[in-house]
Amino acid sequence: MKEFNKIDINKMSKIYRLNLINSITGYKSANLIGTKTNDQINNVAVFSSVIHLGSDPALIGFILRPTTVPRHTYENIHKYGFFTLNQISESQIKSAHQTSAKYSRETSEFSETGLEFEFKNNIDAPFVKDSPIQIGCKYINEYNLKENNTILMIGGIESIYVNKILLMQDGWVRLDKGKIVAINGLDGYSLPKLIERFSYARP
Amino acid sequence: MKEFNKIDINKMSKIYRLNLINSITGYKSANLIGTKTNDQINNVAVFSSVIHLGSDPALIGFILRPTTVPRHTYENIHKYGFFTLNQISESQIKSAHQTSAKYSRETSEFSETGLEFEFKNNIDAPFVKDSPIQIGCKYINEYNLKENNTILMIGGIESIYVNKILLMQDGWVRLDKGKIVAINGLDGYSLPKLIERFSYARP
Repeated sequence: MKEFNKIDINKMSKIYRLNLINSITGYKSANLIGTKTNDQINNVAVFSSVIHLGSDPALIGFILRPTTVPRHTYENIHKYGFFTLNQISESQIKSAHQTSAKYSRETSEFSETGLEFEFKNNIDAPFVKDSPIQIGCKYINEYNLKENNTILMIGGIESIYVNKILLMQDGWVRLDKGKIVAINGLDGYSLPKLIERFSYARP
Repeated sequence: MKEFNKIDINKMSKIYRLNLINSITGYKSANLIGTKTNDQINNVAVFSSVIHLGSDPALIGFILRPTTVPRHTYENIHKYGFFTLNQISESQIKSAHQTSAKYSRETSEFSETGLEFEFKNNIDAPFVKDSPIQIGCKYINEYNLKENNTILMIGGIESIYVNKILLMQDGWVRLDKGKIVAINGLDGYSLPKLIERFSYARP
């Protein structure tokens, strides 16, 4: 095993530390977050920090780094109160990664990356067409994490669209049936295959 | 696409909703969190909510559900100030899932599940032996999320151990070289394979 102590971590080059610390917590969810800039421009950006917060009420969270990335997603969510989460399938990874480029606020990442949008129901934010799972969310709250000036955004789930092939009888969604990817570090895209589904564990 | 609106979500059976909402945000990291109960008993439990919070300072977060799961991990972290994160490899999934059973506080999940522990450096918490990535963390802070009474725990990374086979020259850790798994929903364990690593995206 290669060991890094706190002094080693502090002495690393910025890029080495970014790669290392972003990888070691394991695989991350791969979501495209869709928001509206105005009635003409729709924004979409890849996020690897989306987490499940609870099922009842159905809540999700994600982390925003306000000082290091453009804050279009944040500003748009505050303006319209809605955003969408869209799972990324294998065929979309190149376009999804390209959304992380620093486009101007007046540019739609949809037109730049070849992803397509669609509007559904009462969600005032664009969904990513052909994503195998789409979730419409309403802005609920945010927490400022003072340790590193990041923001935990909290959204409530308003509507869910799931490709029927993925949806099992007990509500479990089998992600590998939609070739949904996971993120390794900052820039690696991986395709998981189910090994096993266990039953509820008892002592 | 199968559609669920907010009324459908509210009307679901508890199990159906748990399975669905836990699956749709995508793949989740699979970490064993190690803590000390006292000098005799070491605790270990599987968590799917560990996220990267930042690289400089190196910070991680995870979500605790205080009202629905035993709080041994939380109590132990408060008592000793330390915990470990340990990536789960394919050969460990059965033992890892078994740690989610509700054992009493006087029982060590290590002796019940066949996982082995080891102590290293100045971290006052057990690491999981044979885990391909081990991280020693110090308790930093916590945030109560009032929306559903969960807790975001924040830890600072004190030391990192990575199997050398996984560690690339630029600090990126290639997780599939350690057969590290990802979690699908509450109880599905998946094995990812790298598709592609992209370079920094530019407009």
